[in-house]
Amino acid sequence: MRLTELETPALVLDRSKLDGNLEQMSAHIRGLGGTLRPHVKTAKSIDVVRRALRDTPGGITVSTLKEAEYFLAHGIQDITYAVGIAPAKFAHVFSLLRSGARLKVIADSVAAVEQLAQAARAAGVRVPVLIELDVDGHRSGVSPDSQLLLDLGQALTTTTGVMLAGVLTHAGESYNCNGADALARFAERERAGAVGAAQRLRAAGHECSIVSVGSTPTGTFTRDLSGVTEVRVGVYMFQDLVMAGIGVCGVEDIALSVLVSVIGHQSERGWIITDGGWTALSRDRGTQSQSVDQGYGLVCDVGGRVLADDLIVRSTNQEHGIVARRDAGPIDPQRFPVGTLLRVLPNHACATASEHACYHVVDGTAPEVVDRWERFSGW
Amino acid sequence: MRLTELETPALVLDRSKLDGNLEQMSAHIRGLGGTLRPHVKTAKSIDVVRRALRDTPGGITVSTLKEAEYFLAHGIQDITYAVGIAPAKFAHVFSLLRSGARLKVIADSVAAVEQLAQAARAAGVRVPVLIELDVDGHRSGVSPDSQLLLDLGQALTTTTGVMLAGVLTHAGESYNCNGADALARFAERERAGAVGAAQRLRAAGHECSIVSVGSTPTGTFTRDLSGVTEVRVGVYMFQDLVMAGIGVCGVEDIALSVLVSVIGHQSERGWIITDGGWTALSRDRGTQSQSVDQGYGLVCDVGGRVLADDLIVRSTNQEHGIVARRDAGPIDPQRFPVGTLLRVLPNHACATASEHACYHVVDGTAPEVVDRWERFSGW
Repeated sequence: MRLTELETPALVLDRSKLDGNLEQMSAHIRGLGGTLRPHVKTAKSIDVVRRALRDTPGGITVSTLKEAEYFLAHGIQDITYAVGIAPAKFAHVFSLLRSGARLKVIADSVAAVEQLAQAARAAGVRVPVLIELDVDGHRSGVSPDSQLLLDLGQALTTTTGVMLAGVLTHAGESYNCNGADALARFAERERAGAVGAAQRLRAAGHECSIVSVGSTPTGTFTRDLSGVTEVRVGVYMFQDLVMAGIGVCGVEDIALSVLVSVIGHQSERGWIITDGGWTALSRDRGTQSQSVDQGYGLVCDVGGRVLADDLIVRSTNQEHGIVARRDAGPIDPQRFPVGTLLRVLPNHACATASEHACYHVVDGTAPEVVDRWERFSGW
Repeated sequence: MRLTELETPALVLDRSKLDGNLEQMSAHIRGLGGTLRPHVKTAKSIDVVRRALRDTPGGITVSTLKEAEYFLAHGIQDITYAVGIAPAKFAHVFSLLRSGARLKVIADSVAAVEQLAQAARAAGVRVPVLIELDVDGHRSGVSPDSQLLLDLGQALTTTTGVMLAGVLTHAGESYNCNGADALARFAERERAGAVGAAQRLRAAGHECSIVSVGSTPTGTFTRDLSGVTEVRVGVYMFQDLVMAGIGVCGVEDIALSVLVSVIGHQSERGWIITDGGWTALSRDRGTQSQSVDQGYGLVCDVGGRVLADDLIVRSTNQEHGIVARRDAGPIDPQRFPVGTLLRVLPNHACATASEHACYHVVDGTAPEVVDRWERFSGW
């Protein structure tokens, strides 16, 4: 099958770019003596993740228990669920543990640990817990310098039903940095916070075997992984315009795109209308606050080459994408007749991929669809 | 089952609010002597749409051919596909026609009509086509006053493989109006544009049996449907914060919400962390440009009552929602311990619903989940 035979909109994945991105990150982390624990929330596909797990011990990070269940069914047992645990998910966690998952969860409060421990005791299981750290004010987690860290260490080592597995942090504010040096400093902040927390726990007499850090920007630019036992990265597999905007990759490294059809024009306004709306691209506007705003995505030809016209998706409705020149200049509709196929590079690969049920796999600019890889969404 | 037994995040639909919204729109359009052709793109569920079709002739509007296929399989044959047709979808359209769908498509260029007619002749089918009109500069369509309208009428009546079914418009810019009077004027603009186009086609000797208008804002406030044969509305079923923001409904009419769990706190920053991220709420920020910015959603208690604290979802990551007071004031974490269930009202019901595979149906503030209705996404 060829791209020209697909019904649009459709998600396209360039396997050669994917493999290039995987190899680059893998070589970088390996070169620093580190270990990858890929985050599967971007890909949600065993076909992609199998490629990402080459040269790794085989553990993964998940953002939902559905991911844990799916990848366990595909033989992956070593799984870290990196979203704070809540009672609504206890039954699912226990069921995964009973099914053979070596599942670890995270927590950042004594109350959450106590709730979990009580339910685990009632269920007759013991749950390994990583203490979630906050190294950059991004979201969740406890400060590496806090008394709460030690309280959590104490609670996890003395309470039946749970056990201390280590510490974990995600320097999500790295997405707001730009360039190799700034991101290398951010990576060091992430590393130092996690390693410092682990040392404090050990000094208090607790075992802290896992020291887990990661984000694609910090993973890409880290220069030192001393004391870190694993690096969690996800979006690096596909890359996207947000990552390109902060220097993590080039636009030409983006492996994911959405194939759309031209369905009309509004020539006086310089618009091309396509069938790639927000259901296909997502509503993500991650480049809005960057120096180059890519609208809802950057437009390529059907072979995945960025068009010289500098076209972006300026707005979206549910099943419509309005494409225009970035400079709002005129477009000759004859160059893009109804039926023309275009490919749109995503702002945020996780969000765009999550709108689709499969990847149509291509290799470089060749028109053939060489494979179809299923993916999933939801919980 | 009760809401407290669901794994979060989960989509919740209040059946009594849904029925109230359906009855209100139905009574309004009936009172004006009009006919509803509900748009099913918001609901994508036969259970919801069966309720919406009471007191109607039974025709629907769809935004994807997957919707057409699903609703045809549930016995609905009269279907208007209200997104400009492109060659990548011809085979699917023809297959639906052969399966018994009374499918109509739309077009706004002679080139699109000629492509379609050629393929239809080769396939041995005849496709009814509505001319898409642009009454407000929103997106696609031809001007009701244009020569192109008459050219399209001529092409559709003289070309084998297609036939002129009528005219269709969607006054999408009505979403940027506010209040009953402004929206009534916008509705009249939509009506007058469509009826005027139909009259011009008829004066040129063409039959124009369908005169189709619609958007939830104009449908809600229209005062005259003279010459209009059908009104297409979709989001009115659920309503949302964008609709409330322009006076189409009250916040208390919103039937859709996302059940989330509190998973942590950052007390110094006044944050509650929940498991309702953008995969659950969508990235839609439709209220950003309105007078009241609701962030990523307005927070209710588990019974669906808006909290007096005036909490909104201030930011989202993939599986995290950060909730804070609108005035950024402090929140007592003791009032929202880990595990607390909250419900988030959506900015944009279409976008939020599209992130989920089913509705958990409740009736008012009662804690029981009284039904589970499947829904779908994709193409």
